[in-house]
Amino acid sequence: MRQRHRPWADDFLRDNTGLIIPEAEEKKGRWKEVFGNNNPIHLEIGTGKGQFIAGMAEKNPDVNFIGIELAKSIIVMAGSKVKEAGLDNVLLLHVDAADLQGLFAENEISAIYLNFSDPWPKKRHAKRRLTFPTFLEQYEHILQPGGEITLKTDNQGLFEYSLVSFSEFGLKLQDVHLDLHSIEDPENVMTEYEEKFSAKGQPIYRCRAVFA
Amino acid sequence: MRQRHRPWADDFLRDNTGLIIPEAEEKKGRWKEVFGNNNPIHLEIGTGKGQFIAGMAEKNPDVNFIGIELAKSIIVMAGSKVKEAGLDNVLLLHVDAADLQGLFAENEISAIYLNFSDPWPKKRHAKRRLTFPTFLEQYEHILQPGGEITLKTDNQGLFEYSLVSFSEFGLKLQDVHLDLHSIEDPENVMTEYEEKFSAKGQPIYRCRAVFA
Repeated sequence: MRQRHRPWADDFLRDNTGLIIPEAEEKKGRWKEVFGNNNPIHLEIGTGKGQFIAGMAEKNPDVNFIGIELAKSIIVMAGSKVKEAGLDNVLLLHVDAADLQGLFAENEISAIYLNFSDPWPKKRHAKRRLTFPTFLEQYEHILQPGGEITLKTDNQGLFEYSLVSFSEFGLKLQDVHLDLHSIEDPENVMTEYEEKFSAKGQPIYRCRAVFA
Repeated sequence: MRQRHRPWADDFLRDNTGLIIPEAEEKKGRWKEVFGNNNPIHLEIGTGKGQFIAGMAEKNPDVNFIGIELAKSIIVMAGSKVKEAGLDNVLLLHVDAADLQGLFAENEISAIYLNFSDPWPKKRHAKRRLTFPTFLEQYEHILQPGGEITLKTDNQGLFEYSLVSFSEFGLKLQDVHLDLHSIEDPENVMTEYEEKFSAKGQPIYRCRAVFA
């Protein structure tokens, strides 16, 4: 997403270090302490403006959520959404997803969400896709046994690629939806993108996969 | 497919026992002898009117094809198509797919095609779907190591179900297409159904899966 200049972003980051955590790698292995309880931790990679994580956190008060987002001007929007909603089970990290093992200990995470990730359609960029094997290796490391990945996208190419990549890595597909909004799923929380694309009649793909 | 009464069907079967093989279970383990060469054997389950198997056999003269079709009035149409095309690398079996191990020995088949199979959309009929685990067990038995299944369908529910069923059984997905005709695949041979549905703009799904 293109970043706009938001002069209040730096101020927001400075004033909300309990929500958008600086020096996050120092908390590795201690995230439950940071949340102050023993609830499972779910991780969203690419949190965007935060509609999904805020909605999930509201629906699931017994789960802790961590959202990662690299774009500063975007993560502060997520931060202000979470703050307004008064949610105490969400933390945000203004970091890159490239070094998850630097941020989380083995088995520290229970579930991972990849929502409308950049499809990187060119073959030579395949290794940047969040379902490329190097990422799956990291997910496997930080996820507890039986932990699952939920992928949601409107991008056909990324979805096709990811199904094969999951399968080749040895993950088991739990369910697959090729047109998510053709079914009633009261559990589904829409992202901003999802709302927009779905309203245009674009099918939304979703699958869940677990490390076997 | 609804069967029409075709009075010539019995005559055709009687006159073409070299093409539509009676008492097929007696050939179990000896299909290469029946073909008279050592080429790999590919199996289509639900051959319908035969456009796919005839087209594949024409494009792949070094492969032997066996087509199974339960409907008598339909298999004779496939038979007459194969006969007209003068293909010597196709055999047809007027049998049910329920007992493949009665028809083929272990490792006797190199590849299996499931084209536009009956989706059996009701949950209580799931066990009739050709990608239900009891069928996958049979495929695993008759397929040689590394043998693959190619599934093609326009039915979203069957495709979603099959991806999960393959994955849970331990098959690896080799490729997945969610809109086959949006790509150029000169190797693709269309079935009658595929031509019809694709012309209506319906997406065609395809995946290949191998026993790991």
